[in-house]
Amino acid sequence: MSHDGPEAQGARPVRGARRPIQDALPIDTARALVLADVVPVTRVERVTLTDACGRVAASDIVSAIDVPPFDRAAMDGYAVIAADTRGATNDDPRTLTRVDTVYTGDTPRRAITQGQCADIATGAPMPEGADAVVMVEHTEAAHTERDGNLVKVFVPVEPGQHVGRQGADIGQGATVVARGAHLSPARVGALAATGIADVDVFEKPRVAILSTGNEVVDPGTPLLPGRIYDINRFTLDAIVRTHGGEPFALPTAPDALEELTATLADAVAQADLVVFSGGSSVGERDLILDVLRARGEIVFHGLAVKPGKPTAFARVDGKPVLGMPGYPTSCLSNAYILLVPLLRRMAQLPDWQPRTRRLPLARRIVSTTGRHQFYTVRVADGRAEPAFKASGDITSMAAADGYIEIPADTNSIDADTLVDVTLF
Amino acid sequence: MSHDGPEAQGARPVRGARRPIQDALPIDTARALVLADVVPVTRVERVTLTDACGRVAASDIVSAIDVPPFDRAAMDGYAVIAADTRGATNDDPRTLTRVDTVYTGDTPRRAITQGQCADIATGAPMPEGADAVVMVEHTEAAHTERDGNLVKVFVPVEPGQHVGRQGADIGQGATVVARGAHLSPARVGALAATGIADVDVFEKPRVAILSTGNEVVDPGTPLLPGRIYDINRFTLDAIVRTHGGEPFALPTAPDALEELTATLADAVAQADLVVFSGGSSVGERDLILDVLRARGEIVFHGLAVKPGKPTAFARVDGKPVLGMPGYPTSCLSNAYILLVPLLRRMAQLPDWQPRTRRLPLARRIVSTTGRHQFYTVRVADGRAEPAFKASGDITSMAAADGYIEIPADTNSIDADTLVDVTLF
Repeated sequence: MSHDGPEAQGARPVRGARRPIQDALPIDTARALVLADVVPVTRVERVTLTDACGRVAASDIVSAIDVPPFDRAAMDGYAVIAADTRGATNDDPRTLTRVDTVYTGDTPRRAITQGQCADIATGAPMPEGADAVVMVEHTEAAHTERDGNLVKVFVPVEPGQHVGRQGADIGQGATVVARGAHLSPARVGALAATGIADVDVFEKPRVAILSTGNEVVDPGTPLLPGRIYDINRFTLDAIVRTHGGEPFALPTAPDALEELTATLADAVAQADLVVFSGGSSVGERDLILDVLRARGEIVFHGLAVKPGKPTAFARVDGKPVLGMPGYPTSCLSNAYILLVPLLRRMAQLPDWQPRTRRLPLARRIVSTTGRHQFYTVRVADGRAEPAFKASGDITSMAAADGYIEIPADTNSIDADTLVDVTLF
Repeated sequence: MSHDGPEAQGARPVRGARRPIQDALPIDTARALVLADVVPVTRVERVTLTDACGRVAASDIVSAIDVPPFDRAAMDGYAVIAADTRGATNDDPRTLTRVDTVYTGDTPRRAITQGQCADIATGAPMPEGADAVVMVEHTEAAHTERDGNLVKVFVPVEPGQHVGRQGADIGQGATVVARGAHLSPARVGALAATGIADVDVFEKPRVAILSTGNEVVDPGTPLLPGRIYDINRFTLDAIVRTHGGEPFALPTAPDALEELTATLADAVAQADLVVFSGGSSVGERDLILDVLRARGEIVFHGLAVKPGKPTAFARVDGKPVLGMPGYPTSCLSNAYILLVPLLRRMAQLPDWQPRTRRLPLARRIVSTTGRHQFYTVRVADGRAEPAFKASGDITSMAAADGYIEIPADTNSIDADTLVDVTLF
């Protein structure tokens, strides 16, 4: 693990101005601290039904209409007065006179009286007077000229049989979707049924993303000597979008006290949640913890996880601030551990249930760090192939389909062991 | 199941002009037919890196630069010539002269020669001449005026130790992401590392969504007598968006031969995939199968699943056409069974792995239909609560958090049985 950088550093004595990282917290403890006192975003915006999927209802949504809006046939057949079919059998059918045909989308032209029926299609409104539908399979229509309007009924029906009653599904005034409900495709459909064209949802949490470091420049710009392209801003942006947040990037902050202070103030003013990467290790120029300490409260700093130890959580003006490691793979895995659960709670989305696959490990892995480890793997030929190079390495990320977790007390996992791969 | 409508109809004799539904296909057979000969969408569009997450790379993406772009320190410490540290111990340290300080983002001002070192931060470029980094923990800097530039080194380092070599992570010309790779947040980050600002991805499949039926009107418009609001267009739209498609709605088609023929021709011309709902049951006005038969080939019609039997799959001008049941819950579950797998293959996305939860069933369910059944449930108090009313009912959808599957040969499931809930 020679390329492991600050990751491998513990709370050992450091020279002069350097700050020790606190005792590293187990991830479960850290996650509990991050998820304590979450303030969900309750600002409301109105979106069209088409844009509502994946959002969260901001109020109880009540139906202004009955669904179905009218009594309707639930079968193709004949609308009848149930009493007229009493005692009907194959050998002793009842004969009714067809007086109307009602298609879906139609309105019936006339009421049904004793001895009469109307040909009716599934979904068509029941004629007045009729109280049941006889399925077409249980009838026989006359085919002769003379008997053209006569229909034989071979089974009796009960009142209400094969009829969808007005309001039986959703009554006018009923709550279709409750405040806080996650608008799945199914619920979007249910809202459409009530005729609603747009809906109040909670705004997405605004997430300020901030890359720190003098060396970081934006992709698409020339790379001067000593500089590297910003990675974490893009990883974090993608994760935030995927999990219901509205990301916005702050200008990359140089490692200087005044700039960082101003940038953080900006971020906290504009955002519901601030995520920065870099600047939380023990380097001489890692000033961001000083800024956080001066402006708010540091809840923890240092996570018992590999990679990703130099991770911090703070509150500034009541807003959560997550400090991610600068190393891309560490930033990524900690985003899944801490940022995703926090963001989803703020967005009032259901907890994330990552997709997983249980696969045999292709090669033995040795892990003697004594920390909970996130180890990237590639899925190939039905096996989990280790993809991890080093926590600073991008290749681990590009090649990986997901990761496995190795508990702190596990030193190695043999080839062919079944492991649970969390897919990206 | 008295409100079950056409769902409950089999291939029984029907009167005159009505068409029988074919023998119903098992869902696995139907899915295999739908997934045979899928033609993925290979049109290409260019998106910014920020919009690339969730998309599929349309070409191999090759790095134009080395990553890291230069030899850099992987630790805070001193850049040294490894040979100068040979044999160093706590009792017998080597003493070097500090001649420079290199911060991240800097360029070193001078080369290191024998006996010299440079203070260096993690990520900073290695000075010329230096070939290793001694971790700061293994050194002691003098604090007196006289010895101000002297640094004691207590451990030896090997050449290359604690150095991230130029190109060691990604070499210039290396393929970072292969054509067809799903752009996860991790891969988006890897692309950012190479300085790419936008990327070629496959276009999303264009999915034409078509509601048929004289009775169907759009939400947000007044509801005339005999009419109901369109539900399936919204459910299908939401599912298509969620699974990587670009939905567009065609005007609701009345049940008339010429209109349906024209609408289908339009849909096939504009879309990669056509999904319609309604019009595939045995009603007198269900003409769409005639239209499909006239314009293309019907692969199957009739699915051994409850709800959702009146489901059809056709190919018209080589384009897949899925005919969904008109009943909303049936349309929804069949969209998950058939549309989602097909769409994801066309989009070249990884197969969908739905989120699931294994929960005890809150109440006994009876299912004696002899068909594979999709049964909506609500998750409450850690139990799966039946939410299914009838296949025409919206309430099943609004209340449901997901569904369980009941095999054709299972007649009942007892309360407290553990069931696998597929979450919406």
